[in-house]
Order: sequence, then structure tokens, then C-alpha cells
Amino acid sequence: MRHLLSVDDLGADGIDEVLRLTDSFVEVSARAIPKVPALRGKTVVSLFFEDSTRTRLSFDTAARRLGADTMTFSAGSSSLKKGESIRDTVQTIEAMGVDALVVRHASSGVPDQIARWSSAAVINAGDGWHQHPTQALLDCYTIRQRLGSLEGRRIAIVGDVKHSRVARSDVTAFTLLGADVTLVAPPTLLPPSLEGWPVRVSHDLDAVIDEVDVVYLLRMQRERMSEALVPSLREYTAWYGLTPVRADVAEARGVVIMHPGPMNRGVEIAAEVADRPNVAVIDQVRNGVPVRMAVLFLILGAGSEAFSAGPVESEPLVAAGGQA
Amino acid sequence: MRHLLSVDDLGADGIDEVLRLTDSFVEVSARAIPKVPALRGKTVVSLFFEDSTRTRLSFDTAARRLGADTMTFSAGSSSLKKGESIRDTVQTIEAMGVDALVVRHASSGVPDQIARWSSAAVINAGDGWHQHPTQALLDCYTIRQRLGSLEGRRIAIVGDVKHSRVARSDVTAFTLLGADVTLVAPPTLLPPSLEGWPVRVSHDLDAVIDEVDVVYLLRMQRERMSEALVPSLREYTAWYGLTPVRADVAEARGVVIMHPGPMNRGVEIAAEVADRPNVAVIDQVRNGVPVRMAVLFLILGAGSEAFSAGPVESEPLVAAGGQA
Amino acid sequence: MRHLLSVDDLGADGIDEVLRLTDSFVEVSARAIPKVPALRGKTVVSLFFEDSTRTRLSFDTAARRLGADTMTFSAGSSSLKKGESIRDTVQTIEAMGVDALVVRHASSGVPDQIARWSSAAVINAGDGWHQHPTQALLDCYTIRQRLGSLEGRRIAIVGDVKHSRVARSDVTAFTLLGADVTLVAPPTLLPPSLEGWPVRVSHDLDAVIDEVDVVYLLRMQRERMSEALVPSLREYTAWYGLTPVRADVAEARGVVIMHPGPMNRGVEIAAEVADRPNVAVIDQVRNGVPVRMAVLFLILGAGSEAFSAGPVESEPLVAAGGQA
Repeated sequence: MRHLLSVDDLGADGIDEVLRLTDSFVEVSARAIPKVPALRGKTVVSLFFEDSTRTRLSFDTAARRLGADTMTFSAGSSSLKKGESIRDTVQTIEAMGVDALVVRHASSGVPDQIARWSSAAVINAGDGWHQHPTQALLDCYTIRQRLGSLEGRRIAIVGDVKHSRVARSDVTAFTLLGADVTLVAPPTLLPPSLEGWPVRVSHDLDAVIDEVDVVYLLRMQRERMSEALVPSLREYTAWYGLTPVRADVAEARGVVIMHPGPMNRGVEIAAEVADRPNVAVIDQVRNGVPVRMAVLFLILGAGSEAFSAGPVESEPLVAAGGQA
Repeated sequence: MRHLLSVDDLGADGIDEVLRLTDSFVEVSARAIPKVPALRGKTVVSLFFEDSTRTRLSFDTAARRLGADTMTFSAGSSSLKKGESIRDTVQTIEAMGVDALVVRHASSGVPDQIARWSSAAVINAGDGWHQHPTQALLDCYTIRQRLGSLEGRRIAIVGDVKHSRVARSDVTAFTLLGADVTLVAPPTLLPPSLEGWPVRVSHDLDAVIDEVDVVYLLRMQRERMSEALVPSLREYTAWYGLTPVRADVAEARGVVIMHPGPMNRGVEIAAEVADRPNVAVIDQVRNGVPVRMAVLFLILGAGSEAFSAGPVESEPLVAAGGQA
Repeated sequence: MRHLLSVDDLGADGIDEVLRLTDSFVEVSARAIPKVPALRGKTVVSLFFEDSTRTRLSFDTAARRLGADTMTFSAGSSSLKKGESIRDTVQTIEAMGVDALVVRHASSGVPDQIARWSSAAVINAGDGWHQHPTQALLDCYTIRQRLGSLEGRRIAIVGDVKHSRVARSDVTAFTLLGADVTLVAPPTLLPPSLEGWPVRVSHDLDAVIDEVDVVYLLRMQRERMSEALVPSLREYTAWYGLTPVRADVAEARGVVIMHPGPMNRGVEIAAEVADRPNVAVIDQVRNGVPVRMAVLFLILGAGSEAFSAGPVESEPLVAAGGQA
């Protein structure tokens, strides 16, 4: 695996490999000193054209636990403001000696473009409405933790599917692992065509909650109101929110509730139900770190010389002759 | 060497010493783990009153590869906004235990001032139109890599010399190493007086390209248009840009093309020629890291106790079974 | 000690314990490699809802010198802007594996709230007008360094007590250690009621300077003018500033002058007197790092497995006697 741009790059076997490796890193994360030097000497740069503190912190933590150095390049304070092209920016960063670029951009396809220009590995940390593959991986891992396997499981994805890279990534990943996906959303929040999507569609969340094993709530962005895609937040919540009544049904049936965060409590999920034991939101965040460790390790670590090392940081010092 | 404020501080011998030490750090940078613990326990702070992601990343990378800790102090979010003087800010940062300050400021002379107040080493990372000594060092290193030596070489510096600290630093450094410098610019983009500058001046880029070994293009800032220093970008490009026609001549003659970045493709350099093999822009960026390692090492590392250390960071590696 | 939210949490014995442990870390800070691996594997996150470069750098430096990893979460670029609650933000950061949160917020009580939600340790780095306990600890340490002990010492706190968390923290800490505190301020800059404050009040700085051992100047914020709490900065300075005349008296009597920074030279302290030998402002900053090392160590390090490790990063650990 050279880059991770989309869940499709992985296939079922690839996802499975990441999830199995994640188990090892969950074990590492539980140690008193939750670190391994597997990526010592590697540099991982966060190249975020769109703000996301939580995703950046998760990747940073993962990279550091593997012993890599991390750096952040945020578009706001960079040469991009001075008219430099993305390509020149990428090649400049790379020339400083970078091993992986973790890229987030508001436009679909930018990480793919960067991967074509770059000799460093590129990991897509979210591009437009397109893909967010590590989110899909941590979602799969969380479902496995809760339910053992995704095979034959019924999963509802509820809300603004149209504008969601999480939904697109999850539909692919869940289906590859054998789950059965139902989208639950008003027609205005579904893509114009679902041709080729291996899903069913429903507009009746109550009926769906009675049948599924997992309800995956998407974030409802306030912009959708001003775009008139939903009449009002209150109406959205009434039809598609996890209200206390629906939460009681879900809890009684043992339905796992998920959300990619940040949650709008009171909109897609009632404020008082987000902390119930069948809600796996914090597990998702927690699993994000070892899942990203697994991805970074598979891309940067396999066969690395770091593994042959004895005691580390024992590199020869600069030869004295060099300083004469 | 206690500070690096200007190329003049170094002289020909000083430049030569940095460039020879850079060779060692180029070798370090090529290792699987491109690090040496030469500056372990030292803290290098970037004190940037003016944004510059690329220069900051380069210094940061250099400091970390030497085992130093790095911190960033950006003026935007600092006490300076609350009315604190630069002097108090510097003394406050220093009191926390800082060994070197890497300073960038929009006004000439600020790093010199800070060096007078500070017990830490000060490295000028660009001050106004005055100096940017590590840029000159990496430019010299890049020319040596391409041409063996600067002795007797003819170098054209093209564009907005008046407002350029890069031009001032390069003229000094190139001349100290025996090169012959020609400035190519409209009179409005040259300093009011060139008395004391060891240069020739030309307004005919085509004639110059036929004679020189290196063409160093300066960045053309859009502000210069509104200041009426050039009639239009298109006219600037026609007279002083590296157009495809000029690029062909340069390539045929083996002229090395350089630029401090970020490039305005389409203005000072045609979009389609910036990636030709005689264009050394990426080499300049790449060489920036080992050049800055050499500078940091010469200032902070000589005689340091770090050199006596045995094997460090002896944690267990990931169990091989975990990666199956 | 699980959290550090207020000086009251510590009591006299707790303050004393921190200050004695600080001595060990002052010794560590004087080493060629000023680091100990006591908190290796721990992650300390700065969660700053209000800008403060100096406090953040001080905590960061302290955490790194103890071998911890550090990360910064600044509210400006975070999910909070997307409507996430502080509680969800905190639980999200925590789920990534954080051991301590260093929290600054413009509203009193936010760190206490976060401590109730959080399984990580919480250190209050300043909340509204309420508390800034590590400032009080470094102030106590600095006074001990200068005067041997606080027992029976007379300390004047001068200026905007009403809006000052530093004043509130210092009054408690100084009094717990046996000092006698006098507040010197116009009535508009004192709290509406001083019931329960173990202090005297004066409006005559000249008389007070003749009697005290320490004059602690508070920062005069320019906002107070527009709020009409003082007639003009010039008048404030005339009545409550450390003018050159007052500074001469203080210096002649050996009065220690302190200030939490950043100083408004020319307002609460005359520009030319801030660098005299009886002014301890830089000592306060310098002591901030080992004081914060002591706090982090007491909260995160005691009994940690890090101490059972074999030779790590090979420096000697803090002597056991230092932690008694």
C-alpha cells in the first residue's frame, strides 16, 4: 500500500488487514508508555487546507506513538496565500524530507492529484464530499468491537448523505465487509442518483430502527437550512433525529448508535441520549488513534529498517572531521 | 560563531566552513533515520513576526534532525498584541530556557537588536529588505552542487532587487566566493544607489542569458504593480521573465535557473518551464535543511556534551507477531 | 493531587511540597541536557480558549523536559466553532489518550467543570477573574528565592485587583505561607466586597512602599479606561505606578518588585526601572518552568511506572529525596 486515497483502494482484504493490525496497536495504546519506535526517523506532515482539529490531533497522536516526527502545514499561514500553486507547495514540503502527507481539502480529488505529484505517501483525511477512508476504517473497527463482525449486519446511515464523505466511505466499507446498508434521509439530502450504490433507501426512521443493528447518524450542517434543503431544524429532528423515544427503542433492541462527530446535540441526536451505553461515539474517537497507527505503519513501516534496529538513537554522530 | 545575522558576519572562510559541514548533514539526511543527537537538550524557538511556513518548517526540520526541541512563537497570538515590547517578549521567551531564536521580522535590523538584548543565539531568518543569510548559504551550496564552485562563475540576479533581502544576501555571498554578479532589472526595481555593490547592471535579459552560468530569478510581488513600479505584470514578464524562448536558450547553454520560492508561475517564470532539469528550485529547498543543520550545529553544538552520550531511548519494539 | 484548579486545593502543605520539588527541577534545568524521562508516554494537551503564548510555552517546556508529549488545541480552529459543546470537545480529546489538560478560559469555573467531566487531570492555567494557581506558585517560589521565606513578610499587591485572577490566587497563597498582604488600588479597581479576604487596603502607595518587603504590580489593562474605572492612564501612573521616584525608594529599601507580565512599561511601571536588580520579573518567568514541572510531576508522575524503567534517555532521575 503506497497511498490511502479511498476505501476502494483497500478492498475487503485490505480493510481486514488494517483492522487486524489495529488490534496490535490497541494493545500498544494500553501500555504505560504507549509508544513503539516503528517509524523513527519518518516525518508525517499534516497538510490541512480545511480546519479539523480532531482529525489532525488523531493522526498526530498516531504518528508520535509510532515514533515519527510530525509537522503541521496549515493553508492559512502558508505560501498558498502568496499565489503559489498547490503543486509547488507540495513539492516544496516534500523536498524538506517528508515521508507521508496527511491531506484534507474542501474539494474532491485533491489528495489524488497530490499523490500523482508526490514521491511521499499520501493519506486522504477527507476531501470534499468524496472520501474519508480512515473514518470508515475506525467505524468498521468500532462495529466489530461491538458486534463481532459486520457480516450480515444491517446498518442504517441517517441524514445528509448527499454532502457526506463519511457516508460515501462507510457505504463502501460496510458493504465490502458484508453488511447491508439502508440510507435514511429526505430526498433533498440524497445524491441525485443512487445508481451503483449497493443500498436501500427509506424515509421512515421508526420502521428502520426496528430492523437494524446499527444506526449511524450524520452531522446536520446548519448551512443546509439556508439552502432550503430541509424546512427547519425542528422538523428535521422530528423526522430524522434520534429523539428520546427512538433512543429508547434503539437501547431496548441493543442497536449501536454511531456518529462521526462533532455532534449537534439537540439536532441529529437528543442532548440527553448521547451518553447512553449503546452510543459508541467515544469508542469511535478512541479507535481512531490505533486505526491510524495501523494505516501509517502499513504505508511507511513495512520492511523499514527501524525494525532491525537494536537500541535506537545509537546512530553514529557527525564525524568530527566534518566540523573542522 | 555566536549569532548569524548577516552574510558579512561569515566572510568567505565562514561560508566555506558552513558548506563543508553541510556535506556531512546531507549524508545524515540520506540515512534511514536521518537524525543525530548533536543538539539534544537544546531548545530552538522560531520567533516569526512575519508569516513564513516554508522557512519555519525548514528550520524546524533541521533542529529536530539534530535532536533539539522546537517551539514556535508567532507574533499574532502573543503578548505583543497586549502592548508588550519586543525586548520584554524576547527576554520572557529566553527566561524559559531557550538556546537559539530564529527570527523573522518585516523591519530591517530587528534580529540585530534582539541579538544585543539576548543571551540566546540569534539566527536571522529574514529581516525586511536587509538580509536572509541562510538563503544565501543554501543558494551557494546549490550552485556548488551544480557547477563545482562559484569561483569565476557569472551569475545574473533578475527582478525586484530593491525590495529583496535575498538579492542583498546573495550578492555578498556570491561575490565573497569569487563569482561575478550582474543585476538585471528595470531602474524602478533597483536600489536608488548601487555605490559599493560589487555588481554590474543590465536591462537586457536576453543578452545576459547568453553570457552567464546562473540566472537567479527573484519573486515579483503583486504589490509592486499598485505602487506603479512596473507598468503591468505582462510587460514585466516580457522584459524580465523567464519565458519559454529564454528558457530554451538557458537550457541549451546549461544555465542553472534558481528562485527562492514561492514562485509566481506565469510571472517571473513561465508555468511550463519551472520543471526542466536545469531548474534547481527544488534542490534549493532540499539543501535548506542540511545547510540550516550546519548553521545550528556551528552555533549551538560545538563542544556540547551531547557528543558523549551512549545509546538512548531503549524501548521494546513492536512484537513481530503483531504485524502479521 | 488529581487536579490543580485553585490554590485552595493545595493548602500550605501542598504549596510547600510543590516548592520543595521545584528545587529538584531547578537543578534539572541547569543541566547540559535539562530533561528527565519521568513522564515518558504521557500526553499533555494545552486547551486554550483564550490566547496566551507565554503560559502555553511555559507549560509546554515543562512537559517536554519531563519527557511528555505535548499538543495544542486552540479553540479558534476547533470543532467548537462548529457548534460542539465544550463537554463533547473535552471527551473527544480525552478519548485520544490524554493524561493532562492544561485549560485556560475567559470564564471563571470552566476548568472545574471540565474536571468533573474528564478522566484526565486538569490544570487551571487561568480562568476569568478567578484563579491562576501556577502563577501563585511561581510567585511564592520567587519570593522564597529572594527573601528566604514568606513567613511574616509584608507584600503589597498594587493595581487592578478586581479583574485579576493573579491577585486572587496570590492573596490566598501568600497568606497561607504566613505573609501579610495589603491591596493598593483605587476603590473602582477593588472587588465590591472584600469580606473574607485576609488583607488590608490602602490607597497610598508611597506610604506602603516604606513598609513592605515586596511590591507586586498588576497589569493595567487599557480596557479599564474606556470603562471609566480610572480617569486616565497618566493619572493611574501618578497614583499607582512604580515611577522612578518610587523605584528609588524601593531599591534603597531592598523591596522586591514583581509583575506577572506582560508589562505595560510606562503605565504600571516606568520604562527605565523595569531592569533594576530588585525587579524579579524575569526570575518569575524562569521559575515558571520548574514550578510547572513540579505540578505536572506531582499530578502525573507519582508512582508512575516510568520510574521503574531501566535506563531511559540515560539521565539520572530526580533524586528520590526531592519528592518526599
